[in-house]
Formats: sequence, C-alpha cells, structure tokens
Amino acid sequence: MIEHPYLLFLGDAPDMLAAKVAIGIRDWRPEFALGQIRLPGCGADLGLTDMTLAEAKAAGAKTLVIGVANRGGVISQAWKKVLVMAMEEGFDLASGLHNLLRDEPDLKAVAEATGRKLHDVRVPSVKYPIADGKKRSGKRCLAVGTDCSVGKMYTALCMERDMVARGMKASFRATGQTGILITGDGVPLDAVIADFMAGSIEWLTPDNEPDHWDLIEGQGSLYHVSYSGVTMALIHGGQPDALILCHEPTRSHMRGLPDYALPSLQQLRDTALPIAQVANPDCVVVGVSINTQHMPEAEAKAYLAQVEAEMGLPATDPYRYGAEKLVDAIAGI
Amino acid sequence: MIEHPYLLFLGDAPDMLAAKVAIGIRDWRPEFALGQIRLPGCGADLGLTDMTLAEAKAAGAKTLVIGVANRGGVISQAWKKVLVMAMEEGFDLASGLHNLLRDEPDLKAVAEATGRKLHDVRVPSVKYPIADGKKRSGKRCLAVGTDCSVGKMYTALCMERDMVARGMKASFRATGQTGILITGDGVPLDAVIADFMAGSIEWLTPDNEPDHWDLIEGQGSLYHVSYSGVTMALIHGGQPDALILCHEPTRSHMRGLPDYALPSLQQLRDTALPIAQVANPDCVVVGVSINTQHMPEAEAKAYLAQVEAEMGLPATDPYRYGAEKLVDAIAGI
Repeated sequence: MIEHPYLLFLGDAPDMLAAKVAIGIRDWRPEFALGQIRLPGCGADLGLTDMTLAEAKAAGAKTLVIGVANRGGVISQAWKKVLVMAMEEGFDLASGLHNLLRDEPDLKAVAEATGRKLHDVRVPSVKYPIADGKKRSGKRCLAVGTDCSVGKMYTALCMERDMVARGMKASFRATGQTGILITGDGVPLDAVIADFMAGSIEWLTPDNEPDHWDLIEGQGSLYHVSYSGVTMALIHGGQPDALILCHEPTRSHMRGLPDYALPSLQQLRDTALPIAQVANPDCVVVGVSINTQHMPEAEAKAYLAQVEAEMGLPATDPYRYGAEKLVDAIAGI
Repeated sequence: MIEHPYLLFLGDAPDMLAAKVAIGIRDWRPEFALGQIRLPGCGADLGLTDMTLAEAKAAGAKTLVIGVANRGGVISQAWKKVLVMAMEEGFDLASGLHNLLRDEPDLKAVAEATGRKLHDVRVPSVKYPIADGKKRSGKRCLAVGTDCSVGKMYTALCMERDMVARGMKASFRATGQTGILITGDGVPLDAVIADFMAGSIEWLTPDNEPDHWDLIEGQGSLYHVSYSGVTMALIHGGQPDALILCHEPTRSHMRGLPDYALPSLQQLRDTALPIAQVANPDCVVVGVSINTQHMPEAEAKAYLAQVEAEMGLPATDPYRYGAEKLVDAIAGI
C-alpha cells in the first residue's frame, strides 16, 4: 500500500485539467494531501501550501504522488530532477502514468540505492479473465459521459458518500489511476490488454448482496474516438443496472479532438442505453450529472432545470449540490 | 519474416471453429499449407495430408504454425511435446496465441539450443500512438459482424482479391493473428493496450491515394460483451467510409456466450452506423456478407435474396459466390 500523507507533484501541468489526479486526491482524501510542489511554468494550483521537499518531509509527508496526467505518458527530464531528489530526501514515489517509474533506469537505480518504493498504479497487478457475460447478483451503477473528464469519477464518489451516509451498501470501484490512488485498489482499465478489458470489470464488480451497489468509475466516452473502446468494455463488463449521464456544458469540442463536437445528452442516452441493454436488458438511465464548475450559480441552476425538463430525468451537479437526487433515483430500482 | 511452407499444427482442437488460423492459411495461402499434424482427439480436419514431423521436414516444410485459437491462450503439455520435437527436427515455430512461445522456458531453451526461431505474431512490435481522430486521405472499408468468427476476415480478403483483379488499388489490413500469419504484417489488436487500440488502427491505415481502399479486417462484434471494446476501437480508429455487415445465419447464440442471442442485421446496422459516423460522418453501409457455409445451395441463395429484399442492400457470400456485388457497391462511393 501507498504510505500517506502525500506531497502532490504538479510538475509543469499547463492547466487544471491536466492535474486531475492531484485534484481528486485533494477533494476525496484531503487528509492525505499535505501540500503541493510545482515546477516553473506550472499552470495548475490546488490551493494547497507550496512546499519544498525538505519542508514537506519535515511536515510528515511520506510519498511524492505525481498528480499530473499527460497524453501518452512521458516522464520529462525536468520532472526527473525532482523525483530523484525526493527519493534522496526519503520519499516513496507513486504514479499513474503510462510511462512507468520502474522503467526509468535512473529512477530505478536511485530507488534501489535509497531503499524507496516506486508505486506504478497504472500497471495491472492481476491476470484478468476474458469476460463471460454471466449475470451477477447485486446492483451496479455506471456513469457514462458525453466526453472524457466531465465528472464521471466525482459522480460515483459523491453517490458512494451519500449512499453510505444513508446506510445503503455501496462501494466505489476505481477504474483509473486517480481512483486507485484515492481508494488503494481497482483496475487500471486503460492499461489492460484489449481482450481482457471487459473481463477485468467483471472481476472488479463480482457477485454481491442483492441490495449492494457498485458505483463503477466511468472512463472515456462512447463519442471520444481515442478511448471509446475502453468505455464500451466498461459498459459490457460492468453490466450496469443504472446509467447516469454525465456532461460538462461549457466544453466547445471533445477533449483533445478539436474537430469533434460533443454529442447531446439525448444522443448519449440513445447510444448508451441499447448498448448497455445487450449485457443487462433491465438497465435504465436514472439521472443526469452536470459538471457546472465553470457556470455561475444562477446559470447552473437554470441549466439543471432545463435538463430535467428536456430529459425527464433528475439532474444535479452532485459535487456542488449533493448526490441526493441521483441516489433517490437508483434507490427506487 | 516467417519461413514457408508450413506444417499446420491443429493440436487437440475440439472443432473446426477452433482451427480458424489454420483454415485461413489453407484458404488464402494454399501454397504455404503443406500438411497438417494433429493430436489424439482432435476434432478439426483441414483436408490436408496428415504428416509426421519427419515426413513434413522431408517434404520441405520450414515452420510449424500453431493453427489453433483457444480462449485465454494456454500452451498445454500435450502440445509442448510436439513443439519441442519440431524444433529438434529443425522447424521454426509460429504462433498467434496470447500465451507466448517465448514465455515458456522449455520452448525458449530448446529454441536457443537448436538455433530455431519463435515467432509470436500476437505481440505488438510497434509503440502505437493514441488516436488523434484526424481525417485521413484514401478510402477505408470495414466489415462488422453480428458475432465473432462470422467471416469478417474472409470478406475483406475476398474483396481485396476481386479489387486487385479489377485493377483497383486495395490493401488487406490484418488486425488479428490469422491475418498477420497470412500477410506477414498487421496489428494484433486484441493484444494492444486499451488506450492505444484506436491509435494502432490509425497507424495501420494511414493517409493514402484518394482512390486507394484499405480493407480492414474486422474483430469481435459490438454485440459480443467479451470483445465489443475491441470492435469499437476498430470502428473509431479505422474511420471507415464503407461498412459491410457480416452474419452467420445458423448460429444459435453468441460464440462462447450461451445466454446471449445474436442481433438481427437491422439491429447491427442501426447500432454500427451512427457509431461509425462519429469518426466519419460520410460513412455508409454498402452491403451484407453472409457466411453460408452451413447452408445447402438452395437455402443459401434464398437466404441471400431475402436479406437483399429486407435490407435494401446487395448481399452475397463472398467466399462461396464471389465478392463482386460488394466491390461494385464500394466502387460507387
């Protein structure tokens, strides 16, 4: 297991979207998020204390967590300097990047010399089965998005928190590096071999009590051509009973794909539901989760009301206004 | 490159479906398929001469090709004996199994001791990019199926043969082990890491002359819950201009999934086309390819006529009756 508390490394992240991992840890395990460390030119700021390695060490931090995601995954030389110095100061390193810490000869050598640990949460640690599609006991809820990074993980985490507070049986099931860094286990789905994707999700969400809910962390989007296959495997492996549609209304195009427009919530519903019903004919769309972080209060509330009217479904921003509406909706099925 | 001709190893394949790799080589490179070798209990028969290793060697065979696919991929001890003896006799080994020849210590040791080669065509040999979804020049055709193993590869190979014969510019693009063993290169898509699936297909089908067609080998099915994510990535990475719907009418349930019925051709069309149009808004469904191998002549012809009437599209069994109708259809777009 990864030792906490953490010092969150933001590197030279161009913007806050690139710091999704660090933001998730700050928001869901604030007690782990002791401070942040940034390189010149970093455009992200978690609002945590900026610390040097020595300051963080003195304050009790155990692990330097790379809180930055980047397309393709590259550990730059500018990062290396901090990572090496961190190990020399006594920190373990934890990362969810594709490019593994353990595959960097210098990092590996320093880790061995200093006795520090390299935690690559990206790497699958299990030999997953091929999916068999058999009906499993217990209930499952999956958030599907119009795009990547629209709040699917936050939706599941908010729902888990609300359900546990109500005394319901609920488990957040992590499928990405942030979720795994937050909860300590899960499936790093985007690093799984293609043939075993759906099977890994069956493994992650096994038979359970009839009234237990898995809140499965969504990934990608059926409409994002770079990652849609991952989303598809998640839907068929997860065999959800309930879908939550997730959307970020201020996005002008699909993340990383300037030529691609986002689908409407209606399009997403009409695409995702028949696909989900292949694996679970009883699946229903129960609600809509809107990421309103870029909307002022009045605009956000008006938008949510409009979505409820147009879609005929409860709609909320679970992070801003609570997940009650969504939990009410799945509690009824 | 893999040296030919081959001796095709069928192992203890329970039926002909399990010998798909060997059948493909026999049908598309008959000059490579010198003979077959089988274990007791083998339920497959290619109609080739059964040979001992010594007989095949004397007849000029260079490589023992494992012509059998199996769920999950395991190299059994019963197989090992033949594989080791084959190397001792002077054969190279070639395999498309998940479980790599090179990962078996005994096979690796014997290969090194005898100087023979282990060809694992399953293993990606390229670091694929993440898909960028940019429009590429040239044309692409993709076969999508109601199920796995319904004739998608054969459809593409038949079309390539017919197009080349007509003087059209056409390239079969292999995405599975059989296709790679037949043509010598391609992407082993089901072994690619999830995040890079669509990118590997963009890499496989790059910019080309405006009148050049890639005939992309299909994989899995959007309706097969074990592999649907692979199919999705193929559609979005391939950004096809033309889809061919593939179906095997005598299948009683999805392959390997007894609880799942096959979709109709209409359902497949209505699911696959909007998904393809996310990546290529001009994509059209141009025809239907029916695998009639289990139907007598009159039944096959009646079925094709019925499909043409119901779907309003040209329908043929390209392996049995030629691919002309399908090539005519894509030649017009």
